[in-house]
Amino acid sequence: MEKKKRIVIALGGNALGNTLPEQMAAVKITAKAIVDLIEEGCEVVVAHGNGPQVGMINNAMAALSREDANQPNTPLSVCVAMSQAYIGYDLQNALREELYNREIYDIPVATMITQIRVDQEDPAFQSPSKPIGHFMTEEQAKMAEEKYGYIMKEDAGRGYRRVVASPKPAEIIEIGAIRSLVDSGQLVIACGGGGIPVTRQGNHLKGASAVIDKDFASCLLAKELDADFLIILTAVEKAAIRFGKPDVKWLDDLTVEEANTYIGEGHFAPGSMLPKVQAAVEFASSKEGRTALITLLEKAKDGILGKTGTRIHQ
Amino acid sequence: MEKKKRIVIALGGNALGNTLPEQMAAVKITAKAIVDLIEEGCEVVVAHGNGPQVGMINNAMAALSREDANQPNTPLSVCVAMSQAYIGYDLQNALREELYNREIYDIPVATMITQIRVDQEDPAFQSPSKPIGHFMTEEQAKMAEEKYGYIMKEDAGRGYRRVVASPKPAEIIEIGAIRSLVDSGQLVIACGGGGIPVTRQGNHLKGASAVIDKDFASCLLAKELDADFLIILTAVEKAAIRFGKPDVKWLDDLTVEEANTYIGEGHFAPGSMLPKVQAAVEFASSKEGRTALITLLEKAKDGILGKTGTRIHQ
Repeated sequence: MEKKKRIVIALGGNALGNTLPEQMAAVKITAKAIVDLIEEGCEVVVAHGNGPQVGMINNAMAALSREDANQPNTPLSVCVAMSQAYIGYDLQNALREELYNREIYDIPVATMITQIRVDQEDPAFQSPSKPIGHFMTEEQAKMAEEKYGYIMKEDAGRGYRRVVASPKPAEIIEIGAIRSLVDSGQLVIACGGGGIPVTRQGNHLKGASAVIDKDFASCLLAKELDADFLIILTAVEKAAIRFGKPDVKWLDDLTVEEANTYIGEGHFAPGSMLPKVQAAVEFASSKEGRTALITLLEKAKDGILGKTGTRIHQ
Repeated sequence: MEKKKRIVIALGGNALGNTLPEQMAAVKITAKAIVDLIEEGCEVVVAHGNGPQVGMINNAMAALSREDANQPNTPLSVCVAMSQAYIGYDLQNALREELYNREIYDIPVATMITQIRVDQEDPAFQSPSKPIGHFMTEEQAKMAEEKYGYIMKEDAGRGYRRVVASPKPAEIIEIGAIRSLVDSGQLVIACGGGGIPVTRQGNHLKGASAVIDKDFASCLLAKELDADFLIILTAVEKAAIRFGKPDVKWLDDLTVEEANTYIGEGHFAPGSMLPKVQAAVEFASSKEGRTALITLLEKAKDGILGKTGTRIHQ
C-alpha cells in the first residue's frame, strides 16, 4: 500500500466568520473540504488563523475589565489561547460530524493548545506593524498607550488601532504531543491563530505581545511533521503576477527559483499574498519532494490532484 | 522495575484564583505539588474545575454582547471550552517550568480540549440547580429569562443567579487522544471544568447548557485510563463525620461499604464534600486495587505515601 500523503492545511481566520453563528456555518463548509482530502487517502493536520476571533475575545475581556475593576487587562497571548479553544471546539465537532456522515469512524479529532516560541531578538519586535482589535478615537488611543503600554497607530483616516509585532515562529513547544497524535492516525487541529506566542526566559515561557503569521506557523508545523504538502488557503484560486491588471497571469506551477524571482519583482502584496508565497517557498525549499499549494478552500482537493491552484516545488 | 503508579488528580477551580494574576500565582503552587508526585515515580494526569474562570469568561462575553449588537450571547459550552485554554495555558507552563527547575526534561506537558457527553435524559436537566455567573437584580434576572431563556433562582437574599443542570458524565469524547498522550509519557491536562458538556444528536454533538461536576468527570477519566489513584483535592486534609461538631471524627481509611454507610447517614454536605466522597467511592468500587484519596493539595504527596488524607478502597 502506498504511504498516505501527509498534508498540513492552513485555514484563514477570516474564513471562519466574525461571530459564533457565522463560525458554526463556516466550519461545516471547511469540514467538507477537509474530509474530501481524507477520502482521497490523505492524512490531514489543520492549522488556522484567528484574526477576527482573537479580536472579538480581546474586546470581550476589555469590556469586562471596564465593568469590573478587579479584572486587569488580559494579555494578547491569553486571548490567543482562548481563541484556539473557541475555534477548535467548533471545528473539531464539524470535522467529526462530517467524518461520521461519510461513515468514517476510525479517525478521532483533537485540538491541541499550542504555544510557539519566538525569538526575543526578532527584529519584528522593533517595528510592530500588525494591527489588531477595533478602531479607537485619538483620545481612547492615548489612554490605551498610557494605561496598557500599547503601541497605537493611525490607520488610513479610519481611526487608531493597536499594532503588535509579528515575529517569525522559531519552535513549536507542543510538537511532541502533536506528532504523537498525528502518527497514531488522529486528525489534529494545532497552532491555532499562528500559535500562542511565547519567549523563553530561562525555564519560563513568557507570553509575548505579538501575533505569529499563521502561514509561517503552518510552514513550521509542516516541516516538523515531515509533511508532503502544505496547503495555504486564500480568497483566490491561484496566485498571480500583474494581479488586477489586464495582462494578469495566473500561476499554475512554479519552481522555488521562479517564485523567488516574482517575489523579488514585487508581484505579491505585503500582508496578503506575499507571506503566503514566502511560506510556500520556505516549505518547498526545505526538502526535496515537498510541495506547497496556494488555492481556495473548495479547490483544495482538485489542487492536490494537480488540477488547479498554484504549486510551488523544487 | 515496578510499574509507575498512574494518578488522576482533580484540582478545584477555586484553588486557581479569580483573576489572571491570582491564577499565575496559584498554578506555581499547584505545579510544585504535582511535580512532587512525579518525583515520587508517579505518572500524573491533571483534571481541574473552572467555577470562577468560566464565570469570568461568561461575564466578559455578556459584556461584549451588550456593547456590540452583532455579537449574540455565547453558549455556556463555548465558555467552558475557552476556560480550558485559559487555565491550561497557564497550568501547563507552570508544570513545564517546575519540571525543568528540577531538571526533568523528558516529560512534555499538553492541554487537550475535552468534550464530555452527557445523557439528554439525565434527570439533572429536569431540575437545574448549579448556580453560575454573577448575581443579578430581579429586573435583570427577568430580562435574562426572556432574552436568553435562562433559568434564574433567588439565592439566599443575595440576588438572582442563573442555574444550570449538572448531569453525570457519560463518555469522554477525546479519550483516545488523551490515552495516546498519557501512554507515551506526557503530562496531560484534560477534562478542564468537568469537560465541555455535549449531547449526541445523530452524528452531531450539541453543546449543553450544563456544567459537569469536575470530581465525577475526573472519576470517569481515572476509570478510562485505568488509573491506580484518583486524588480529589479539597480545602481540608481529610473528610470527616460530625464535621464542625465537638466530637468530629477525621477519616483516615474507609472501605467502600463504610463510605456508603456514612453517605447514607448524611455526614457529607451536598455540593461540597458529598460529591467528592461519591466520586471517590465510584472510582474505588469500579475495580480492585483502585484507591481514591481526598486531601489538601499540599498533602497530596504525603497522601500517596499513606501518611495522611482520607483513603477509600475496596
